[in-house]
Amino acid sequence: MQDVIAFIDSNRKRFVDDLVEWVRIPSVSSDPSHAADVKRNAAHLAAHLRALGAGRVEVWPTAGHPAVFAEWLVDPTKPTLLVYGHHDVQPVDPLAEWVTPPFEPCIRAGRLWGRGVVDDKGQVYVHAKAIEAFGKTAGKLPINLKMIVEGEEEVGSVNLDALMRDHRKDLAADFVCVSDTAMFGRGIPSLCVGLRGLAYVEVFVDGPALDLHSGSFGGGVQNPINALARMIAALHGDDGRITVPGFYDKVRALTEVERKEIAALPFDEVEWLRMAGAPAVVGEKGYSTLERIWARPTLDICGITGGFQGEGAKTIIPARASAKLSCRLVPDQEPDEIVRLLQEYLAAIAPPGVRVRVENLHGGRPYLAPTDHPVFEIAKRAFSKAFGKPTIFMREGGSIPFVRTIADATGKPCLLMGFGQPDENAHAPNEWLDLENYHLGIKSAAYLYDEIGRMA
Amino acid sequence: MQDVIAFIDSNRKRFVDDLVEWVRIPSVSSDPSHAADVKRNAAHLAAHLRALGAGRVEVWPTAGHPAVFAEWLVDPTKPTLLVYGHHDVQPVDPLAEWVTPPFEPCIRAGRLWGRGVVDDKGQVYVHAKAIEAFGKTAGKLPINLKMIVEGEEEVGSVNLDALMRDHRKDLAADFVCVSDTAMFGRGIPSLCVGLRGLAYVEVFVDGPALDLHSGSFGGGVQNPINALARMIAALHGDDGRITVPGFYDKVRALTEVERKEIAALPFDEVEWLRMAGAPAVVGEKGYSTLERIWARPTLDICGITGGFQGEGAKTIIPARASAKLSCRLVPDQEPDEIVRLLQEYLAAIAPPGVRVRVENLHGGRPYLAPTDHPVFEIAKRAFSKAFGKPTIFMREGGSIPFVRTIADATGKPCLLMGFGQPDENAHAPNEWLDLENYHLGIKSAAYLYDEIGRMA
Repeated sequence: MQDVIAFIDSNRKRFVDDLVEWVRIPSVSSDPSHAADVKRNAAHLAAHLRALGAGRVEVWPTAGHPAVFAEWLVDPTKPTLLVYGHHDVQPVDPLAEWVTPPFEPCIRAGRLWGRGVVDDKGQVYVHAKAIEAFGKTAGKLPINLKMIVEGEEEVGSVNLDALMRDHRKDLAADFVCVSDTAMFGRGIPSLCVGLRGLAYVEVFVDGPALDLHSGSFGGGVQNPINALARMIAALHGDDGRITVPGFYDKVRALTEVERKEIAALPFDEVEWLRMAGAPAVVGEKGYSTLERIWARPTLDICGITGGFQGEGAKTIIPARASAKLSCRLVPDQEPDEIVRLLQEYLAAIAPPGVRVRVENLHGGRPYLAPTDHPVFEIAKRAFSKAFGKPTIFMREGGSIPFVRTIADATGKPCLLMGFGQPDENAHAPNEWLDLENYHLGIKSAAYLYDEIGRMA
Repeated sequence: MQDVIAFIDSNRKRFVDDLVEWVRIPSVSSDPSHAADVKRNAAHLAAHLRALGAGRVEVWPTAGHPAVFAEWLVDPTKPTLLVYGHHDVQPVDPLAEWVTPPFEPCIRAGRLWGRGVVDDKGQVYVHAKAIEAFGKTAGKLPINLKMIVEGEEEVGSVNLDALMRDHRKDLAADFVCVSDTAMFGRGIPSLCVGLRGLAYVEVFVDGPALDLHSGSFGGGVQNPINALARMIAALHGDDGRITVPGFYDKVRALTEVERKEIAALPFDEVEWLRMAGAPAVVGEKGYSTLERIWARPTLDICGITGGFQGEGAKTIIPARASAKLSCRLVPDQEPDEIVRLLQEYLAAIAPPGVRVRVENLHGGRPYLAPTDHPVFEIAKRAFSKAFGKPTIFMREGGSIPFVRTIADATGKPCLLMGFGQPDENAHAPNEWLDLENYHLGIKSAAYLYDEIGRMA
């Protein structure tokens, strides 16, 4: 391991250069005009993994964007680890808020800035570079390793179920490692043991056939924006709870033990607020901030549009308005059921004079890890070796549909070993990657492979 | 008058061609990028009025867009009529909904289609062509006529007060005729005796410093779109009344006589709804639809924006949201006071975790005409001669700040003689002008000049 670690130390700068090259490709999966870029992005990764000595590298087409598969099979008596990541990235708008262009990565203050540097290209390369370190020193990996890097994580992993079904044998493994999460805080190695799910819909409210003069018609007909605002407002009570009937029926309540563990974490609410740039913590009454973002469901409007949005004043009653509405879900809520409840409730509270339609955009199921399995202790140890600190269990408010998909499909423990930080603007302008975390992340992955290799 | 009417009949087609030429100029006053077009538009009109024999034509600059002034002084013993119109037009978006381009006017089914054809270029040309008819037949007008055509009506006539102050003598007249309203229905000559005012603000709601990942932060901080929706919803009660404290304090209640007059009009609510393309009439309880749109104040959101609006799903808590909010006002509400009440109330109901700012965009005062003055009977007679039907009194839900400005400044009666129709999409895509109304409007203006000329 000494050689492996020394190699990682001496190639620190070049490992960043390799990542920069990949980040230049704008693999925005939600925008059809970037489909060719996502494809090119997959090809770039495949070529890179091939150069790292993978015995087999394939680009798997899907109904949407392609996934990349690679495997290094060294010894059938050794355990097999399946590493998951994704090569697609979030949209970049509002583009004007980026200090430097999202696809021209650059380094400032020990950070690499660009879209996808941490979510998730940097974390995919943490593994790629750990693999490279073994290849260039020991000559081979201490375990069998497979890698699946999908191209649709940011649009709900819509074709991943089918990929897993079609490639069940290719993806067979003893353990799974997902690197797409953030650490609890700077320098605190953290294994994520819970993820929220997601139900994402778009609500369309149609009123008049066309924009009307607000003088000639104002007071006579329903205004779709006012109607939509009324409906959105009705989705929360004054206590911050969601009012959709049945919404909380399947929510697994936090145990007293879980609440104590969460309360014991070194959570600095003031610093967290500063990071969000928000003036106050706000949410469901009766729960701490960490409890709310990790273990309680939410309902947020991610976007709203309607009527005149140009400069100045235009006096109209708009023909229509719409909102993108997302719910974060917790065990044991099911996205399809939540969408159905939302559809029923929104139809029930629609005011007269408008037509309401709710479209299901995408969803993902929540996850809780089986933390009593021994691989969790092994992973804690590997992580702590690299960072020199004890590893904690945490949860994450975000969603990675793949985790639940593979957990259900394989019944194998899933390690969520993330190297991001919570303030790295993963879905916002000016996404960045802490280069020290990137470096220590590569070492953590190397230690993990080494520790798992000794399990056999 | 026989020659004048015959000239109007025989030049029917060419009068349309002249209007088409003017409509081609995209004089959108609310969009700074069209400032040069508005200027060119004023120059085009000035040249046209000069060609019609005006003794004096001037383009009056303002701090914003220029106004055009023209006068035909024929006899100091005759009454002087001041005609008001505007040469600026509404924005065109959503552009995609126009069947033919807004600034390439064309004729289909007896209608002229294009931005500004009826609001207000067509109505300005009704007077220009009546003036031309007298000039080419009788050789001169039967009255002294002045024309003021401003370039900022669609942005609240912001510099009109100053123009009126600076040109008090130039604009002196015995009567004022404003042609910028619609008739009660097809073929029903109508004098408008009441206008609503306007208070237009933009509400800005700021939350986090930047867009946040809705998984990592959802449930922990206030969402500015949800907050804005909640505030908008709180502005109306279930009875459709506006909840802003003090909002109705200055509202002049309808008298029983006024309510009876309104109820007696041939208002076809089903047809009106069809015209709006709306599924139901909706509004303040206790008032008929005509009462609500003519004599009751309103609060409508004209536009809203926030968060992600692209294709697909982006999981964010947006940094900010904003809405354009307009109130139509009735006597004796004052725009400045209403804006102040809105600012106070919106600040009071802002939920925790966001900062709220309300910007005053523009306003205008409501108007009620002194219908007992004899010029109203004269105008009714002139109008009926052209259309062959009795002329009715009506109100209009829209706002023309100039009317109140000149009424207050001069103390003279203001005739609101409009030739539009309520379904001509004045502020929407596919604006059109009924060419029969245009033709009969020109005759109505000619009869009006003739009747006023005999008053002397």
